Amino acid sequence: MSDERKVQEVLARYVRATDKRDGAAQGALFTPDATVQIYSKTGPDSYEPVGAPLIGGDAVRYAVENFMAPHPERGSSHHVTADHIIEVEGDRAHMNAQFIVFRILSDARPADGWPVGAFGAQGTVQPIESGYYDTELRNIGGEWKITRHHILLDMAMALPSA
Amino acid sequence: MSDERKVQEVLARYVRATDKRDGAAQGALFTPDATVQIYSKTGPDSYEPVGAPLIGGDAVRYAVENFMAPHPERGSSHHVTADHIIEVEGDRAHMNAQFIVFRILSDARPADGWPVGAFGAQGTVQPIESGYYDTELRNIGGEWKITRHHILLDMAMALPSA
Amino acid sequence: MSDERKVQEVLARYVRATDKRDGAAQGALFTPDATVQIYSKTGPDSYEPVGAPLIGGDAVRYAVENFMAPHPERGSSHHVTADHIIEVEGDRAHMNAQFIVFRILSDARPADGWPVGAFGAQGTVQPIESGYYDTELRNIGGEWKITRHHILLDMAMALPSA
Repeated sequence: MSDERKVQEVLARYVRATDKRDGAAQGALFTPDATVQIYSKTGPDSYEPVGAPLIGGDAVRYAVENFMAPHPERGSSHHVTADHIIEVEGDRAHMNAQFIVFRILSDARPADGWPVGAFGAQGTVQPIESGYYDTELRNIGGEWKITRHHILLDMAMALPSA
Repeated sequence: MSDERKVQEVLARYVRATDKRDGAAQGALFTPDATVQIYSKTGPDSYEPVGAPLIGGDAVRYAVENFMAPHPERGSSHHVTADHIIEVEGDRAHMNAQFIVFRILSDARPADGWPVGAFGAQGTVQPIESGYYDTELRNIGGEWKITRHHILLDMAMALPSA
Repeated sequence: MSDERKVQEVLARYVRATDKRDGAAQGALFTPDATVQIYSKTGPDSYEPVGAPLIGGDAVRYAVENFMAPHPERGSSHHVTADHIIEVEGDRAHMNAQFIVFRILSDARPADGWPVGAFGAQGTVQPIESGYYDTELRNIGGEWKITRHHILLDMAMALPSA
């Protein structure tokens, strides 16, 4: 498999871990000294950092396990990435990708069954977040690990303490 | 072209065939003994099968031609796939991908033209379904064919007989 | 990097240039004699051209700079492409891809801060357009350039003069 595809699959695993709130899987994608920073867009070409950076895979794991809102009953999510631009130079790589986050809520099957005429998937799929991931990786013993991850949100972000 | 890309393009052709309701093109992507099963999510890590599996490309073709709801006038759809994880081993491959289905309905041009100030695409694009495709393929004479296809819906699914 | 990936990354740069309204970056992806034509869907398998074709990268640049609606304050967009089918033959390539356009509008942070309980991204993400890009490219001195670009919109399109 090409290095570019390997790098892209790191992000494919990242979004699955995020959507499953699987902190261990998420943290394992980062080096111990990786920096992770969320940015919020403030203008056509400007961003401001949101909160402090996370440092290292263990901190990522902790954040996923403790700070991400759990899915409600019958709820799930998809972080979809697209249009990756990937440059590999030796054991270093840079990746930029678009992302859109979808929030899914399945309907509950009524006790007396679906109404007459209901057909197909029952529930809602709603896009709620978007932006770019800008990510640096290093090949360590044959495995690509994230060393720096910037989440460039298109939108303002509210934090509990803000 | 790399085997990973060839495998991914099978899914790219699958979604085009689905969106065009082209049963012949859809069926041709499967082996005669392929199994296709829809699953509906019942919990964070659990699914239940929806209906019986389809067996073989001809059954897929029949299902597309007879069981998929046709698009309404001015309607279309996009099954968008993303974040593929693909493993190829010899003549076998496994692919996992996210999908989001969008339903499109174009506005009809008013008899007296678009209203003043109307500019750009006129209509609605709505996400209606999501989940994962989990797919096994086999290289047969140089062509990758689907041997097993699981559609893991995030949502409950209503069938006419349910 | 494989030619298929290089070709796909041309489209990844195209969507970034479009979303940034960066006419210079957009125009640079096309040859001087490239033709660009928007089509609007008129039936299950039929399209009609919308307006006249643009000819050449400079015309593309001019169109981006003068005809694309600027983003409103706190607004942005993502043109997301997916499910590329790419064929490379020598110095020629053909690419077909799905696209979905999302319009993003960030909320403004209230003067007295976010309301109690607000958490996460604040704003709206809305799919507004979709279709296929059908694109021909030529390798010129090691760089893939677009020679023909068809934008096959799923929807009717209103032009100021229509």
